[in-house]
Amino acid sequence: MALIVQKYGGTSVGNIERIRNVALRVAQTYDAGNEMVVVLSAMSGTTDNLIRLAHEACERPDKRELDVLLATGEQTTVALLAMMLKSMGYKATSLLGHQAEVVTDCACGSARILNIGASRIRRLLADGQIVIVAGFQGADIHGNITTLGRGGSDTSAVALAAALKAAVCEIYTDVDGVYTTDPNICKKAQKLSRISYDEMLEMASLGAKVLQIRSVEFAKKYNVPVHVRSSFKEEEGTMVMQEDADMERLVVSGVTCNKNEARITLKGVPDRPGIAFRILNPIAEAGILVDMIIQNTRTGNITDFTFTVPKTDLREAVEISRRVAEEIGAEEVMSDANIAKVSVIGVGMKNHSGVASRMFAAMCEENINMLMISTSEIRISCIIEEKYTELAVRALHTTFGLDKPEETLP
Amino acid sequence: MALIVQKYGGTSVGNIERIRNVALRVAQTYDAGNEMVVVLSAMSGTTDNLIRLAHEACERPDKRELDVLLATGEQTTVALLAMMLKSMGYKATSLLGHQAEVVTDCACGSARILNIGASRIRRLLADGQIVIVAGFQGADIHGNITTLGRGGSDTSAVALAAALKAAVCEIYTDVDGVYTTDPNICKKAQKLSRISYDEMLEMASLGAKVLQIRSVEFAKKYNVPVHVRSSFKEEEGTMVMQEDADMERLVVSGVTCNKNEARITLKGVPDRPGIAFRILNPIAEAGILVDMIIQNTRTGNITDFTFTVPKTDLREAVEISRRVAEEIGAEEVMSDANIAKVSVIGVGMKNHSGVASRMFAAMCEENINMLMISTSEIRISCIIEEKYTELAVRALHTTFGLDKPEETLP
Repeated sequence: MALIVQKYGGTSVGNIERIRNVALRVAQTYDAGNEMVVVLSAMSGTTDNLIRLAHEACERPDKRELDVLLATGEQTTVALLAMMLKSMGYKATSLLGHQAEVVTDCACGSARILNIGASRIRRLLADGQIVIVAGFQGADIHGNITTLGRGGSDTSAVALAAALKAAVCEIYTDVDGVYTTDPNICKKAQKLSRISYDEMLEMASLGAKVLQIRSVEFAKKYNVPVHVRSSFKEEEGTMVMQEDADMERLVVSGVTCNKNEARITLKGVPDRPGIAFRILNPIAEAGILVDMIIQNTRTGNITDFTFTVPKTDLREAVEISRRVAEEIGAEEVMSDANIAKVSVIGVGMKNHSGVASRMFAAMCEENINMLMISTSEIRISCIIEEKYTELAVRALHTTFGLDKPEETLP
Repeated sequence: MALIVQKYGGTSVGNIERIRNVALRVAQTYDAGNEMVVVLSAMSGTTDNLIRLAHEACERPDKRELDVLLATGEQTTVALLAMMLKSMGYKATSLLGHQAEVVTDCACGSARILNIGASRIRRLLADGQIVIVAGFQGADIHGNITTLGRGGSDTSAVALAAALKAAVCEIYTDVDGVYTTDPNICKKAQKLSRISYDEMLEMASLGAKVLQIRSVEFAKKYNVPVHVRSSFKEEEGTMVMQEDADMERLVVSGVTCNKNEARITLKGVPDRPGIAFRILNPIAEAGILVDMIIQNTRTGNITDFTFTVPKTDLREAVEISRRVAEEIGAEEVMSDANIAKVSVIGVGMKNHSGVASRMFAAMCEENINMLMISTSEIRISCIIEEKYTELAVRALHTTFGLDKPEETLP
């Protein structure tokens, strides 16, 4: 017997039939002798509809009140699942965020979980109940309803699993696991049976939309094994867990790409100390996140300064850059929205030299020019022209031996 | 400056435009220097839709979970109104039942309010806030969400007004007050400017669907003046209040009718002590409410026993009656669903004799046969053939001088 936390996303509870399917899965796991806590999202589309309704009500909905409104989405699904399970003869109780003692800070709309009391959950579990908790929501210390932001139900589930010391947190979603790369881009993409928290963090932040980043950070911090799997299939998905020696056999676990960034270059910048600060500080003050930064020395004390920002912030970032360029006496400001970031990720590369050069060789072979490069301990990313994205992903996927099914990998 | 509780029903908050209209009315009352607590229902239709959804989920939805589901309706409207008022520059906060400390018993679906803490409401009012409370809902002592049953928002509003010692509880609805009779039946129906709690209770239970009965009982118990008025008009509605000497000038305040009852007669019942109990007890045990009862002595010790039950329970009541008839040796069981109950109501009749005979004379004049008669201190009701209902209502309305506008009455 184990304590299992299962989380079902919006697609998995998208209508009554699908909630019935969830009820059957939950019942099956319970019947196998497990203690069960189930975390639900709102039906897919509900949250967007509620946000639209709020914007019909007023231009800038108050955050506290928006959270009160949004919290109805998960309240609906937990009540429906609980009544279904009860009608099937199971003992079940739904709990809203505040009833499950999910205490958050006061940052409505993007609240962070401070603590989970879970005493009531424990009592219900001891009574043999299936406990169904509304994801995405909690309450601050004053009892105000808060929500955790997009994908917050993943975080709710992992946090509950941590608080209850659950054996595993199963995240049911509409994909059947984490893949070596996007199967829409590369048909040879393989499902990974395991991936480390750190790799998953890099994958999530680079565009693999399987798990919410914050939930992975939470899982890593409290060492909660997370099983990502499909609610429409029986087969096992991907286990996100602490890295072990075994994992390091794979040099690269995945290849990701991201077309959401754009590049700005200030040409002919006088190369003085503090110039990077003078350029980037006004950008940061405008709340724009800068990702990659490169400074190329040209001749003498003249340099070109390049950085990337989210495409959605490009216009504002260019305006700021033009102002700064004038102030510091740069020659001109250029921008390019037709770029993509391609990355290879793997805890294995920590112990393998030459990963970067293998990557560069593969790109060279396809005649793809790398415009910028950045690295972390377990990731190498490069900016390329957008049109080469899919070609680059497939080439890297092959180069690092990911085209074969996992079990046949060295 | 006064503390005013305003309650808006489902039609008044039926869509975003109507909620905006409510926001304007609330703001207007607040700007006039009043402290404001606003109680809202769910948008009209929402509760029915949620009940339908629950029945799609399972045949017999668990009551606790149904309440969790239903509570989302009012949660939606209070959030929307609060964000609107905030965007208009007012300080406003929405509170759900448990946040407003509305403590109820554990009878999910038809919970009764035990206590209202209201400490948070008082703090918010002291801060100059407009407090918007979700009607219809509360929480039991374990923190489970409960709902108060149909029309429960009226009860929420009156209970809050009582707890806060509000100057008045204004109930905004889609009619503009309480009428002497149903304007759809009698065009000469007049709006009453005042009506006593007792009269209102008789009116409500007899079919005038303006105010929920329990809210009137609550208002009477705590002496809360209730102002029933339209949210679509500016004019005053009807004040429901303690009766005063003035009110008694009117002998009859209203005429009501009700087509929801049916009649059952056991003919040829041996007239022994305890026979009424033997007939009615099995009916009561089946949860069927008996309204009027008549026992006619025929000849010797043989009697006919007649009573009325809700039409929806007629079939079951007849079956039970047949069983009983056989046991006690009655001759036969007859039933009639084509009946109506017509009543005249008025605190004034306590001090006036002859009201009954005036009523009977009016019915006689129209050749309407009275099948059964029952009275209370302030009401006389009679059962007639259903087809005469409208005729009887109009005749009584004229007989008791209600056709003239109120101010011209004696």
